[in-house]
Amino acid sequence: MKLDKKGLLIVISGPSGVGKGTVRDALFQMKGHDLTFSVSMTTRQPREGEVDGREYFFVTRDEFEERIKEGKFLEYTEFVGNYYGTPLDKVNEALKDGKEMVLEIEVEGAKQVRKIMPDAVFIFIAPPTIGDLEKRLNKRGTESKEIINERYQKAIREIGLAYQYDYIVVNDTVDNAADKIMAIIRAEHARTTRSLEGYMENLKLEEVDHD
Amino acid sequence: MKLDKKGLLIVISGPSGVGKGTVRDALFQMKGHDLTFSVSMTTRQPREGEVDGREYFFVTRDEFEERIKEGKFLEYTEFVGNYYGTPLDKVNEALKDGKEMVLEIEVEGAKQVRKIMPDAVFIFIAPPTIGDLEKRLNKRGTESKEIINERYQKAIREIGLAYQYDYIVVNDTVDNAADKIMAIIRAEHARTTRSLEGYMENLKLEEVDHD
Repeated sequence: MKLDKKGLLIVISGPSGVGKGTVRDALFQMKGHDLTFSVSMTTRQPREGEVDGREYFFVTRDEFEERIKEGKFLEYTEFVGNYYGTPLDKVNEALKDGKEMVLEIEVEGAKQVRKIMPDAVFIFIAPPTIGDLEKRLNKRGTESKEIINERYQKAIREIGLAYQYDYIVVNDTVDNAADKIMAIIRAEHARTTRSLEGYMENLKLEEVDHD
Repeated sequence: MKLDKKGLLIVISGPSGVGKGTVRDALFQMKGHDLTFSVSMTTRQPREGEVDGREYFFVTRDEFEERIKEGKFLEYTEFVGNYYGTPLDKVNEALKDGKEMVLEIEVEGAKQVRKIMPDAVFIFIAPPTIGDLEKRLNKRGTESKEIINERYQKAIREIGLAYQYDYIVVNDTVDNAADKIMAIIRAEHARTTRSLEGYMENLKLEEVDHD
């Protein structure tokens, strides 16, 4: 029985290189869920095969900056000269419809979401060890030592922000991490702060039926 | 990876007649868990087949009252002329050993536990509807209408205390309820308040290893 009818925003974040995208993908591949994801908006050019509204909403720089001014992003960031952002209206619509919406975003973006949506569930994907994180950052193999080191320093700073999250999920294996996130989502629906109102309303309806 | 090494006290409570004992039993019958339960202490006579230290610790009224004075109970109650209580030392031992200990107790007992162990996870087992609760209370069939009505009134008052719990789990089916409790236990281990210290310690160990 689902008592929490308001929908749930689940923010999956964590340091660069921790593999949060892979964990998110594994989560969506699990059976029996009803999760939905947010399509981001970007100013970068669509790549071959990408469809507007599926991979991203593609807009111009002017349009994006206009939307920033109008407060139309739940969070946004600039990366290698392009903007990326989560449209607020889509998230609000999904939550109003009682959906479970998953955002997989950077630590900086999660900080912005926390200000606007403190009721969201914030999950920090953490590397099992520092050594593991180093290995992952080196694995891409396409970047210079300097860039890898920069990303490593950034990741260490980001791990220091784990305390701001509701949950810490260690990415020891992708399946373990996805499985734990699913347990968290189920548990969060049952949290009294989310479920009590719905439960009491159910009881009242029942009483009316009895009259 | 288990980051929370301190053990977890899980308090399952709820109104009279909600079926919390059955839910607890279903929980313990699930596979792959590592839950342990607390053996209560009582002043009632052992029934045939009951073994001291297995079903209950059987003690005299004097012994029980002495223990109350010494603060040796996590919670206790008097019911139909007999005392029932949860020995505090056993719970502390289990938690120290990193165990997951489940207490299935009355609402009044849960209130006492909340004062001594605010870090415990408090789960309120709730009837799906008021009609369902009435049916369950009537089902026993061995009690007078007056007693049933008294238990019903008590249950209604107890439902009003659900807001004091961390989670509300509706006992729509026993398996659903047990399953949801298991998700809650898994999620609670990942809560930052429980897991951050262990996670950071792991990271430090790793750094020392690298030197």
